[in-house]
Amino acid sequence: MATVSLVQYEDASPQVRAVFDDIKRARNVKDVNNFWKALANQPTLLKQTWEASREVMKPGALDAVTKEMIYIAVSVAHNCEYCIHSHTASAYAKGMTQEQYAELLAVIGMASETNAFANALKIPVDEAYLK
Amino acid sequence: MATVSLVQYEDASPQVRAVFDDIKRARNVKDVNNFWKALANQPTLLKQTWEASREVMKPGALDAVTKEMIYIAVSVAHNCEYCIHSHTASAYAKGMTQEQYAELLAVIGMASETNAFANALKIPVDEAYLK
Amino acid sequence: MATVSLVQYEDASPQVRAVFDDIKRARNVKDVNNFWKALANQPTLLKQTWEASREVMKPGALDAVTKEMIYIAVSVAHNCEYCIHSHTASAYAKGMTQEQYAELLAVIGMASETNAFANALKIPVDEAYLK
Amino acid sequence: MATVSLVQYEDASPQVRAVFDDIKRARNVKDVNNFWKALANQPTLLKQTWEASREVMKPGALDAVTKEMIYIAVSVAHNCEYCIHSHTASAYAKGMTQEQYAELLAVIGMASETNAFANALKIPVDEAYLK
Amino acid sequence: MATVSLVQYEDASPQVRAVFDDIKRARNVKDVNNFWKALANQPTLLKQTWEASREVMKPGALDAVTKEMIYIAVSVAHNCEYCIHSHTASAYAKGMTQEQYAELLAVIGMASETNAFANALKIPVDEAYLK
Amino acid sequence: MATVSLVQYEDASPQVRAVFDDIKRARNVKDVNNFWKALANQPTLLKQTWEASREVMKPGALDAVTKEMIYIAVSVAHNCEYCIHSHTASAYAKGMTQEQYAELLAVIGMASETNAFANALKIPVDEAYLK
Repeated sequence: MATVSLVQYEDASPQVRAVFDDIKRARNVKDVNNFWKALANQPTLLKQTWEASREVMKPGALDAVTKEMIYIAVSVAHNCEYCIHSHTASAYAKGMTQEQYAELLAVIGMASETNAFANALKIPVDEAYLK
Repeated sequence: MATVSLVQYEDASPQVRAVFDDIKRARNVKDVNNFWKALANQPTLLKQTWEASREVMKPGALDAVTKEMIYIAVSVAHNCEYCIHSHTASAYAKGMTQEQYAELLAVIGMASETNAFANALKIPVDEAYLK
Repeated sequence: MATVSLVQYEDASPQVRAVFDDIKRARNVKDVNNFWKALANQPTLLKQTWEASREVMKPGALDAVTKEMIYIAVSVAHNCEYCIHSHTASAYAKGMTQEQYAELLAVIGMASETNAFANALKIPVDEAYLK
Repeated sequence: MATVSLVQYEDASPQVRAVFDDIKRARNVKDVNNFWKALANQPTLLKQTWEASREVMKPGALDAVTKEMIYIAVSVAHNCEYCIHSHTASAYAKGMTQEQYAELLAVIGMASETNAFANALKIPVDEAYLK
Repeated sequence: MATVSLVQYEDASPQVRAVFDDIKRARNVKDVNNFWKALANQPTLLKQTWEASREVMKPGALDAVTKEMIYIAVSVAHNCEYCIHSHTASAYAKGMTQEQYAELLAVIGMASETNAFANALKIPVDEAYLK
Repeated sequence: MATVSLVQYEDASPQVRAVFDDIKRARNVKDVNNFWKALANQPTLLKQTWEASREVMKPGALDAVTKEMIYIAVSVAHNCEYCIHSHTASAYAKGMTQEQYAELLAVIGMASETNAFANALKIPVDEAYLK
């Protein structure tokens, strides 16, 4: 259960419907996922977040799958359940292979472990990295 | 200042020197960076971490730069100062461009923001993601 | 399911009942919420936490709604599901408006994003902030 | 030392200078702080972040000091050193009193402690909070 | 629902079965818990994680219960629901008493609170700790 | 540099001095460490935190070194630089051996890595753990 209710298309204001329509067109889906329905209680936040997200996640210097994997890595570190589910699904939908997912997990695990070592040991940053 | 002292090559045990030599050969560097010198106080941990790291970070289904960027994403979320400095340097050394770094930052920022929204709103995961 | 069982009033020791009674009186509720029932397995921790919480969360230089919103912000960053639900409910009960909640979310999101940027970039703190 | 260099006004592109000028006007300061100089390596990110930040942090349903305190709470949870310094300074500049800061700290501490208890005990959310 | 399916023994490859058999023998259980079934989609990761885990968690300079309590402390800070449940169960199975659990919770809570204070106040580390 | 100034004994109020005296007596030290000097700007918080800390960290069902190690584990996960330095020093002062510290690090690292795996895979909690 969300701390806010989910706004369905039929109950949405014209402003919210316009964003929902835009998401559906851009993603070629029949209905938007719950994230947008929850955010729709704050129409301004909905519009800004959708527009920023569309811009940030589109292929550029990094391809779409790489961006999804980076997104997953951040979401795992913050343990955002919703985000992990939705972006793992997106990554697969955009072409992530099982082999890539296995390596993604291995890097996330390795980074989490060595982050802990470096933080615990308070290792001074090498001069070479500070130039 | 680290909570442990940094083990220099000339003071290292034969077991530690063997790992240091291996790192220097694999990376073609004259000296290992401080992370390994700090970890060298625990020779078993040093050996295991180096061997796992070399395996995990080598190019496979994901290329080396992508792995470094995922590593950076995790390290930023955990705010591991040492790791952020060393792996941002590694990513550049392995060919990350300024454009890729800018997009990496944008994805990390977007994920951090929307992670917070989804966590705050406790949005139920869509059925479609759970199949 | 909790890792400990929930202590119900009728099964509670006199020491625990005294705290439960105090909570019910202070909040004018018929039963305490699950947080206290779970903590009641550690009677000393229960008593200290309740007394500290009542003291810290009461209106002072900051009003009660502001305190609840700060509590929510911390709980979102730690992703404490129970805390997010209970304190969002408390904030509304104490008078938080929809407009305030929308702005709270926007600030939490903005802070989460820019925290990530500043951590990633390892920006040196301006001298002006260190005086 | 930042992982990127700080862009000074005299070396900035016209696009970056326009944002810097806007920040200086809005805040009535002679120079922008390091956060913006670091972000200026990514001109698009700089512009978007500044515009979003100005919008989000301006007084609305929540006053400016309350917004700064919420920002501090998030930054402490993520341990963003730069953000803690800069927004504690901003909060004081906007009128936060010593008494308010003391209560802010107390709420952050209490939330951090009880977040840990609730997460450790995996307390089921009360039905009343899920309606 | 996991983002990967759970691999059951009867559907597992010989490589995965070998690890499952090893876990069942070592722990004297009839079936492995879900963590290993989920990880079994990545057979190499499964094998490495099991072998490292068995090594790290066995009694040594620290006894088995102490190791489980440290594991719980980390898992609470990262809010890993699965890990908190499984390692709290393990800790009890290995002999953790109610009194020890209560003190574990109290230390985790105290550390979480004072971590927040020290991070918020950006307290300079005493010279005495840096020698 | 702290966001608050450090209160020295000679400048402290009688209320703060009383706490400082108590700390010095309890720990048999000539001066209190910076944590308490920083907290002394909030005399009530100082008194409560000291009294709670003394109570929580004293040997009980868990010995003093175990408590310090749990404290370190939490502080590493939150990356509290001050806390990691001060409590690693305390743990050594109370008798933590090099072997114990190495095992502490290994458990923290293993937990951090497997926390990430379990969070990424969203593994359902085994029924056996929920009874």
